[in-house]
Amino acid sequence: MELSEARGRLFAVGGGDIKEGDAPLLKEFVKLARGARARVVVMTVATDEPAAAAREYTNAFKRLGVDDVKAVDVSARADALKPEALEAVGQATGLFFTGGDQLHITSLLGGTEMQALMQRRYEKGLVIGGTSAGAAMMSNSMILGGAADESPKVGAVEIGPGMDLIVGAVIDTHFSQRGRYGRLLTAVAHYPQDLGLGIDEKTAMVVNRNEFEVIGEGAVVVIDTGAMTYTSLPYTEKGDGLSLYDVRVHVLSAGARFDLSKRAPVVAEAMPKRGKSEDGDEQAAPKKPARKSAKKTSDKSAGK
Amino acid sequence: MELSEARGRLFAVGGGDIKEGDAPLLKEFVKLARGARARVVVMTVATDEPAAAAREYTNAFKRLGVDDVKAVDVSARADALKPEALEAVGQATGLFFTGGDQLHITSLLGGTEMQALMQRRYEKGLVIGGTSAGAAMMSNSMILGGAADESPKVGAVEIGPGMDLIVGAVIDTHFSQRGRYGRLLTAVAHYPQDLGLGIDEKTAMVVNRNEFEVIGEGAVVVIDTGAMTYTSLPYTEKGDGLSLYDVRVHVLSAGARFDLSKRAPVVAEAMPKRGKSEDGDEQAAPKKPARKSAKKTSDKSAGK
Repeated sequence: MELSEARGRLFAVGGGDIKEGDAPLLKEFVKLARGARARVVVMTVATDEPAAAAREYTNAFKRLGVDDVKAVDVSARADALKPEALEAVGQATGLFFTGGDQLHITSLLGGTEMQALMQRRYEKGLVIGGTSAGAAMMSNSMILGGAADESPKVGAVEIGPGMDLIVGAVIDTHFSQRGRYGRLLTAVAHYPQDLGLGIDEKTAMVVNRNEFEVIGEGAVVVIDTGAMTYTSLPYTEKGDGLSLYDVRVHVLSAGARFDLSKRAPVVAEAMPKRGKSEDGDEQAAPKKPARKSAKKTSDKSAGK
Repeated sequence: MELSEARGRLFAVGGGDIKEGDAPLLKEFVKLARGARARVVVMTVATDEPAAAAREYTNAFKRLGVDDVKAVDVSARADALKPEALEAVGQATGLFFTGGDQLHITSLLGGTEMQALMQRRYEKGLVIGGTSAGAAMMSNSMILGGAADESPKVGAVEIGPGMDLIVGAVIDTHFSQRGRYGRLLTAVAHYPQDLGLGIDEKTAMVVNRNEFEVIGEGAVVVIDTGAMTYTSLPYTEKGDGLSLYDVRVHVLSAGARFDLSKRAPVVAEAMPKRGKSEDGDEQAAPKKPARKSAKKTSDKSAGK
């Protein structure tokens, strides 16, 4: 897996309003990109309003204490060859891709010196963040479009190659908010070798080599069709409803971690600590751990 | 499982416009309920507009060739005791519950002689159909409400007891159309003993003892949290995001069958026939089945 070789981090946000107020997700991004000493470049290639996006993100990063914030726009392929743009990307400790249309990112940056530079610098430690389209472009497979409000159907989701920063995955964004389970299921029903990664709004998947951790308000949903025992896809026509058996789904909320190479959650470390009141109980009655754990067991088995 | 004792059928529709045109789902319902000799009773207890619903469904069933169609409304508990209503339910070969509010069904019929009669007649062969609220009420656990547009959170879905026609399940409707994966996941994260059954619009789950079959345009999605290897629920507070590992999901489109007692799809019989062109190939070259199947295997492993 190429991913494991890279020393950089990916910071993939599922969209939503992340620039306002305390901007807790951007704050985490800045922290990863060296904090106050960060050199942040706002990449506006995806959006049709690059000036406004550049201004808003620059203001947000300045408010978070970053002095060195630049914006690089690529509205034509020639823009990706400009020396000052390449220098900004070459010097950055963090790139942040705004939302917009993910196909703008691939069609304008794909195969350019700027993409090669990003990839080289990512392998050496660059932090690459993005929200919505800026996150969707990170995987090797990229969803271009498809209805969210129908059940999985053959050929119902348009998929193309993404920017290969994560290999073996397809990312969807605005996931719970736009009800995109069916759409991501459809995508990975066609390509079970890819994990489906559905990121909620105001939520980030922070990738460090083969692992990612979830931060923010929502969840990252992993859909793993690699475990499927049956798919009707090869026997059906375009537009037909799909049957898929034994799909594995993981819902990962803040603090949970996932091993992309093992296709499994990192279990031991994801276990949250017990609540404060229980810790208090335990301190008050340290002699009865056995009885306490017996009680917990019976509570669990009681069910509804 | 109580279900296996009943000789009746359940015909649970996920909502949507099912009365118009050829009304293919209602046609199947009528077929199960003895076709032209059916005695259908439209149950309008869930809706606030019982007269209009009664008229529309009566017209639809008449168009489908059913002469004996009655409507029974229960707008107060006393209505469930009326002799003519009980006689209609007692004589019916098929009951069909309209949409509306599932809590009207339980609060007005729960514990009445009419519910007991329905249950007795269901055990002896009555076909009970319903759409939307009329389907949601059928399971032992019933979703009352909850946002569809957020990730699974502790306590985010209101659940109460349903009418117990299917035991060991919780039904949700308008499933893909309203993006309710997260909501149903939340429900069965709280009660993993229940299977989550999400029915799309214009789609029916036809239950016959322990099995159901899917008919119609969309899918029935089964969410099985019984296989979960980890849930953060016991360690979190109301409103916190949930982490759930190894949830099993089955997407079942028209023709697929599921065994509720084994919590597994019926695999052998759900395998669709091969396409026509391939059958043609096989007839043209009947001597080479081995080679053909070898080719199929390599096609499959080739992936994307």
